[in-house]
Amino acid sequence: MSSKAQKYSLHDILHPRSVAVVGASANETRGSGGWVARLLDFGFSGQIYPINPRATEIAGLKAYPNVREIPGPVDYAIFAVPASLVPPIMEDCAAKRVKAVHIFTAGFSETGSERGKALQMDIERIAREADIRVIGPNCMGVYYPAVGLTFSPGFPREPGPIAFVAQTGAGSSRLVGLASSRGLRFSKVISYGNAIDLDAPDFLDYLATDDETKFVASYIEGVKDGRYLLESVAKCAKAKPVVILKAGLTEGGSGAAASHTAALSGSAAVWDAFFKQTGAIAVESLEDIIDMAITFLNFSRPQGRRVGIVGRGGGLGVIATDVCERAGLRVPPYTVETRGQLEKLIPEAGASVRNPVETALGLRAAASFYEEGLKIVCADPGIDFILTHIGVDVYGGYGPAMHDQLLEAAEVLIRLSKTLTKPLAVVFYPGGRLETVAAVMEAQQKCLAGGLAVFSTIEAAAKAIGRFLRYHEFIEQVVL
Amino acid sequence: MSSKAQKYSLHDILHPRSVAVVGASANETRGSGGWVARLLDFGFSGQIYPINPRATEIAGLKAYPNVREIPGPVDYAIFAVPASLVPPIMEDCAAKRVKAVHIFTAGFSETGSERGKALQMDIERIAREADIRVIGPNCMGVYYPAVGLTFSPGFPREPGPIAFVAQTGAGSSRLVGLASSRGLRFSKVISYGNAIDLDAPDFLDYLATDDETKFVASYIEGVKDGRYLLESVAKCAKAKPVVILKAGLTEGGSGAAASHTAALSGSAAVWDAFFKQTGAIAVESLEDIIDMAITFLNFSRPQGRRVGIVGRGGGLGVIATDVCERAGLRVPPYTVETRGQLEKLIPEAGASVRNPVETALGLRAAASFYEEGLKIVCADPGIDFILTHIGVDVYGGYGPAMHDQLLEAAEVLIRLSKTLTKPLAVVFYPGGRLETVAAVMEAQQKCLAGGLAVFSTIEAAAKAIGRFLRYHEFIEQVVL
Repeated sequence: MSSKAQKYSLHDILHPRSVAVVGASANETRGSGGWVARLLDFGFSGQIYPINPRATEIAGLKAYPNVREIPGPVDYAIFAVPASLVPPIMEDCAAKRVKAVHIFTAGFSETGSERGKALQMDIERIAREADIRVIGPNCMGVYYPAVGLTFSPGFPREPGPIAFVAQTGAGSSRLVGLASSRGLRFSKVISYGNAIDLDAPDFLDYLATDDETKFVASYIEGVKDGRYLLESVAKCAKAKPVVILKAGLTEGGSGAAASHTAALSGSAAVWDAFFKQTGAIAVESLEDIIDMAITFLNFSRPQGRRVGIVGRGGGLGVIATDVCERAGLRVPPYTVETRGQLEKLIPEAGASVRNPVETALGLRAAASFYEEGLKIVCADPGIDFILTHIGVDVYGGYGPAMHDQLLEAAEVLIRLSKTLTKPLAVVFYPGGRLETVAAVMEAQQKCLAGGLAVFSTIEAAAKAIGRFLRYHEFIEQVVL
Repeated sequence: MSSKAQKYSLHDILHPRSVAVVGASANETRGSGGWVARLLDFGFSGQIYPINPRATEIAGLKAYPNVREIPGPVDYAIFAVPASLVPPIMEDCAAKRVKAVHIFTAGFSETGSERGKALQMDIERIAREADIRVIGPNCMGVYYPAVGLTFSPGFPREPGPIAFVAQTGAGSSRLVGLASSRGLRFSKVISYGNAIDLDAPDFLDYLATDDETKFVASYIEGVKDGRYLLESVAKCAKAKPVVILKAGLTEGGSGAAASHTAALSGSAAVWDAFFKQTGAIAVESLEDIIDMAITFLNFSRPQGRRVGIVGRGGGLGVIATDVCERAGLRVPPYTVETRGQLEKLIPEAGASVRNPVETALGLRAAASFYEEGLKIVCADPGIDFILTHIGVDVYGGYGPAMHDQLLEAAEVLIRLSKTLTKPLAVVFYPGGRLETVAAVMEAQQKCLAGGLAVFSTIEAAAKAIGRFLRYHEFIEQVVL
């Protein structure tokens, strides 16, 4: 039976009216970070049923010895019990007509042991016979801030446009943490581990038409049904950008994936063809995913790949140019007219105006250069978009003035980006000192909130924009 | 006349007994950050002569209207005057028998203008006729903490084993800043700009036999004498590791380099051959240079490229494996015996022991795992070295306990690294929160000071170690 045909939809699974927590710790309290506390503290509005045979109350809620004893209906159960207990409790869930379960528990096929494999087959059989949808086992489950589901108490409550579905729990935590600290927010994150039932294609098919999601990212080690994945990714990529971190493509990585989620990784050549056919964007790291999200959410499509670079430091400009060209962008010289206009703006001798153009020394001077300089660069007919880079570290000592000036520069860039006729991307480079890292994080968050595509390095910006351009070229070819 | 034959040696230039600052600002004071203040505040012990026709005293020192009026001999002069004033003041220096000058001033050949080129030719002629050695123009000059020379008041006073010679001032500032915040220190840094006299080969030839320097890095846009560069780099690379960031290798980058220091970049193919012939290590970023320095200073040579990875997070381990293999390392499965021993150490179900091996959840559990686990991995006959990764972000909330546990983990790793029979490299991943960044920076500094090779990402560690191994293979081939 194809998982596509089953009756309980992903939309229903992700909107449970009641959740049983099987294996709730007897000494859980609000704020303790356990599975019951996570739901309570995150504002889940449905019924929560802690299950523990040795407790009558957990975190202020009535506890039940067994799923079967719960009075009302149970839509969703979270399993946090030893692996050997999962099959009998799955039988309880079948009897109780639980619609979906998230099996946090690990210790199944990924161990490579006969016992683990047998246990996993038991769960699969019970789920199939009782029409129970399964997320996992061996995974963190669902973070869906709008409905109050989370697998970490520290995640933001505020929802956003990014979805992430992944065969990695630690990776999902890292991604949400990194993205959140930049100001990005998620529609839903699903860590689905061994994927004995619900698998990447189910999630991607669902996300294709999910109005809460504008950008989809996925970490995949392997899938059961390659054809279904191809179809669902192609469908999703037609509707919105899809970024996939395919793990286990090297020899060692493939072995590690088998040991992690019992996944069959597939060959690099097959996956290469997959990306070419579907229009999904291949990336190599969690940081890449964040940079692609920023690009798709905050950067408009330029007419072409010719970038005008603006930033202090001649040698840093040469490095930036090499980095951009290696990422598939072009850094052509500005026209003679543009150069003449730029020269008038720059008091210092020796500052290059060829492309990159150097701003004057100092953050305030840079910000004041932007006011006229970005318009001049923008008007150059040989340029499709602008990339500015600010490195506070090249301006020497750090103080409160620099902090304020950095935020002022961010404000200027946000304001100008709305008047320029070509897209603007910004790099705020953190440098090595904690004070500059703190100030830059603040400036970056301000830029992101202000709708500006902002990155930490030229490398990240160039790589993301290069991929963004190739994606649009692909989509255009397919449509034509 | 070859610059090699000139009489005043680089050793002499870098140990001046007296420095004239031409164009010292009349209102400079200690702490003001100007060229005179930099020398004073940095503890330069020789004579300092501020030159300014409109001042009698600058920062407590007697000022002179002209170099010629200085009573004693002048070894070294720093030029911070407009470009048009440089040739006449060079004539003054010739009359005064000044031995070397650092021309900070820009506005010469790099502008592409006839006037700039003519001014630069004037300087070259005067320097040649009077045997004055020139650093620059269009550069930041010398940072040599042991003798009290610096171009930024914020650089560390403490010397170290790293030398950096570069045609970029902002890049030099950034490199010193980044490296310093990690705890690395420099023997000497020379930003030499347009290189009308002293050029990369002169510096590299000198550094080959400089006892204060154990690791050499260089940023080069172009050189006048390719043969001399080849010889000097080959000589230096025989004596100690040499890392070169060759900028301007793309079409746009080449144009940008011409506009920055009037350099002719050369073709990628030529430089490829250059690296193959000399044994210098090619890198692409300033961050790469720092990672190579850490590797050469704190990592011993493993017998081969087979790495045992240790760290929390199954998916993160798969990504780490792919990253390592893409960087030319190998991540083979541990032996059955090793896996059996590791399994006994790990209480949690589902934790992989194949390679990567997962530590138990939590920083304290990770540190306690290291005590036995690293010995077991180290004893595996299929492994040449160990790479551990700790990401505080995957452990959820941050608090003082995590900060302390992170530093404890660093201490454990430092201690163990001294007893293991195979090299150990460590990744402390900063995550996205300012608190974790701060704690990780502290842990990284502790590791570096403790002699441990520590990196911020698996990517950085794998790339640096891959290059380190290729370097040793090259050196071996050349010696055989």
